[in-house]
Amino acid sequence: MTTEPPLEAEAVLTVLAGLFVLLLGAKVGEELLRRLGQPGVVGELLGGFVVGPSVLGLVQPGEAALAMAEIGVVILLFTVGLEVRLDDLLAVGPVAAATAVLGVVLPVVAGLGVALAVGEGPASAAFVGLALAATSIGITTRVLAEGRVLHAPFSRVILAAAVLDDVLALLLIGLVSGMARGDLSATTFFVALAGVGLLLLGLAAARRARGLRREVFTWPLFADTPLVPAFLLMLLFALVAAHVGLAVIIGAFVAGLIVAETEARPELETEMRPLGQIFTPFFFAVTGAQVEAHSLLDPGALGLALVLLVVGVLSKVAAGVVAARSLGRWSSLAVGVGMVPRGEVGIVVGNLGLAAGVFSPALFGSVILAVVLTTLLTPFLLGPTIRRARG
Amino acid sequence: MTTEPPLEAEAVLTVLAGLFVLLLGAKVGEELLRRLGQPGVVGELLGGFVVGPSVLGLVQPGEAALAMAEIGVVILLFTVGLEVRLDDLLAVGPVAAATAVLGVVLPVVAGLGVALAVGEGPASAAFVGLALAATSIGITTRVLAEGRVLHAPFSRVILAAAVLDDVLALLLIGLVSGMARGDLSATTFFVALAGVGLLLLGLAAARRARGLRREVFTWPLFADTPLVPAFLLMLLFALVAAHVGLAVIIGAFVAGLIVAETEARPELETEMRPLGQIFTPFFFAVTGAQVEAHSLLDPGALGLALVLLVVGVLSKVAAGVVAARSLGRWSSLAVGVGMVPRGEVGIVVGNLGLAAGVFSPALFGSVILAVVLTTLLTPFLLGPTIRRARG
Repeated sequence: MTTEPPLEAEAVLTVLAGLFVLLLGAKVGEELLRRLGQPGVVGELLGGFVVGPSVLGLVQPGEAALAMAEIGVVILLFTVGLEVRLDDLLAVGPVAAATAVLGVVLPVVAGLGVALAVGEGPASAAFVGLALAATSIGITTRVLAEGRVLHAPFSRVILAAAVLDDVLALLLIGLVSGMARGDLSATTFFVALAGVGLLLLGLAAARRARGLRREVFTWPLFADTPLVPAFLLMLLFALVAAHVGLAVIIGAFVAGLIVAETEARPELETEMRPLGQIFTPFFFAVTGAQVEAHSLLDPGALGLALVLLVVGVLSKVAAGVVAARSLGRWSSLAVGVGMVPRGEVGIVVGNLGLAAGVFSPALFGSVILAVVLTTLLTPFLLGPTIRRARG
Repeated sequence: MTTEPPLEAEAVLTVLAGLFVLLLGAKVGEELLRRLGQPGVVGELLGGFVVGPSVLGLVQPGEAALAMAEIGVVILLFTVGLEVRLDDLLAVGPVAAATAVLGVVLPVVAGLGVALAVGEGPASAAFVGLALAATSIGITTRVLAEGRVLHAPFSRVILAAAVLDDVLALLLIGLVSGMARGDLSATTFFVALAGVGLLLLGLAAARRARGLRREVFTWPLFADTPLVPAFLLMLLFALVAAHVGLAVIIGAFVAGLIVAETEARPELETEMRPLGQIFTPFFFAVTGAQVEAHSLLDPGALGLALVLLVVGVLSKVAAGVVAARSLGRWSSLAVGVGMVPRGEVGIVVGNLGLAAGVFSPALFGSVILAVVLTTLLTPFLLGPTIRRARG
């Protein structure tokens, strides 16, 4: 007879120490950058980079750190959903739709062009373009919240466009990876359709949730407050979204939109804040910790990554400036810059390309580096832009 | 050049799904047990057991679940420390000291006796006794909080005795494992001394912290509220306590005592509550998930485990009834029953015994099962006892 020890003490302590170092690194980094007048989130990224394997090597993010990071970004987008009103999002629908379409088409075309120009074949070039398609607005929402402009029109356009953008990218990824496998079956389309269906269902649910009483969440005896039921709902939506091929953060955002329409909203905003303060720094610190310093030293791969970075930034900025021009010059620029960061979807596409055999390891490295650099760069560009757009 | 993907999407999603299932299982279990008039924490344990590998097999707790669980129990003891006043603890010092000493001596002697009686050698019998020594009050504090008696005199005795009990167990473990290795060096004593020193330092710090302003926590720009600095302090104390050989929860409890004396206390109580609601259920669900059902079916090992369970319960109850008799009959019984649960220290001793070669796998299994069963049994015994003690 054997019974597993409930907690393997030594291993768990090492993990706990790693989490402590990541959180401390993120907060020390934030403190330094904010004292220099820079966005705090850059400090969290840099703090994670410094304590991570590339520099000091104090911590190697494992399963626990990745889970804390993922829950962190899920909480971030859920709370953004909590703060935003569905009607405000729908009101900017046409501008957001134009931004999303142009913001997917331009980067795909530009990425494809660059990859073809450096001698890649059409299949691998298509994957390069796709990797530059989907915006991941974790970092943008954080900068918008720090700048207290989450309710500005350009912020609403960014949020609504990011949701549509994710759906478009999902459709394209299904299409292209089906073509790459030479197996463009009906399944691909059904999966994409399920993603769209889920999103529409979520928005319909948000409309129906309007004015629901607090007791919708607090009828269970375990629920003294709406927190735990809402937290479970958030995780459920995130997981279902991932299951149908959307990003987890899109699911979390929709769950936030739904809950925001109920009477539990003010209480949940208060209760989610401490959770965000503890979990969310892990997302940025882990992102920073996973940038490999030596990949910044290989001239060829670095060169291609920088070209993809420039192309990736300019194509999203152009999309925003053109599609959201009705908002005015600086606000449309804020929309474009806000859509610059790519994240997990870009990385998923990179991994698909590697798995399908169309990416060499070097090309994979350049694409991932370009994706990560868009995230690192955004706060520096977006901070000054929103100050102009606001005033 | 290779750059690690910031998040390995598939693996992280599986982990996230596992965490969702654990939390949902814990809460469904709590709901059912509470509707049956039983303590909610038993439902969390059973919920974890049911979704875990032994029954439904929906989730196999990995690094992330263990980390959430460990942070959960750390937060639980930190918030208990926040609610308790140092002076109240010191006031019950003599009764608590007697409870702790008797509560270590009786189980050690009883466990040793049982093990010798079933034919074990003196070294392995000593480890059996030790494994029954240290109380782990995670579950007790939860039952006390559910019963709203955290400030009753018997609760204060339990809390103070649990701290002393941990120190005594630490000293004994150092002594016995030194003897088992035939290497009773000065190091063993220095380590134990460091534990005692840390504890005294912590209590002195709590005294010095009295009336400190909120700004002690909120001077960093990243700290809008005291939460993040206090959370880092909590983790630091937990890790330092573990480093000198004490349980992490003792470090967290002392950190709570210190912070409780500052002006940041009311705000921190409010901010820690949502964190406790999300993290703490993982501690109980993971504990439940790691009970292996088939170990309940081996007659020999199960028999020894049940004998150790009975001996373990009666020895702690006797210690409380005798040492805390000045509190009155039901309150002294509550002290004894409150000290019954053994936890991570018992499991650590089991692993030491296995590593030192004095435990057979079967004996190890029985000891661990007895330790886990003390935890499962406590809420059923403690609930009715505190109702009598209170009224």
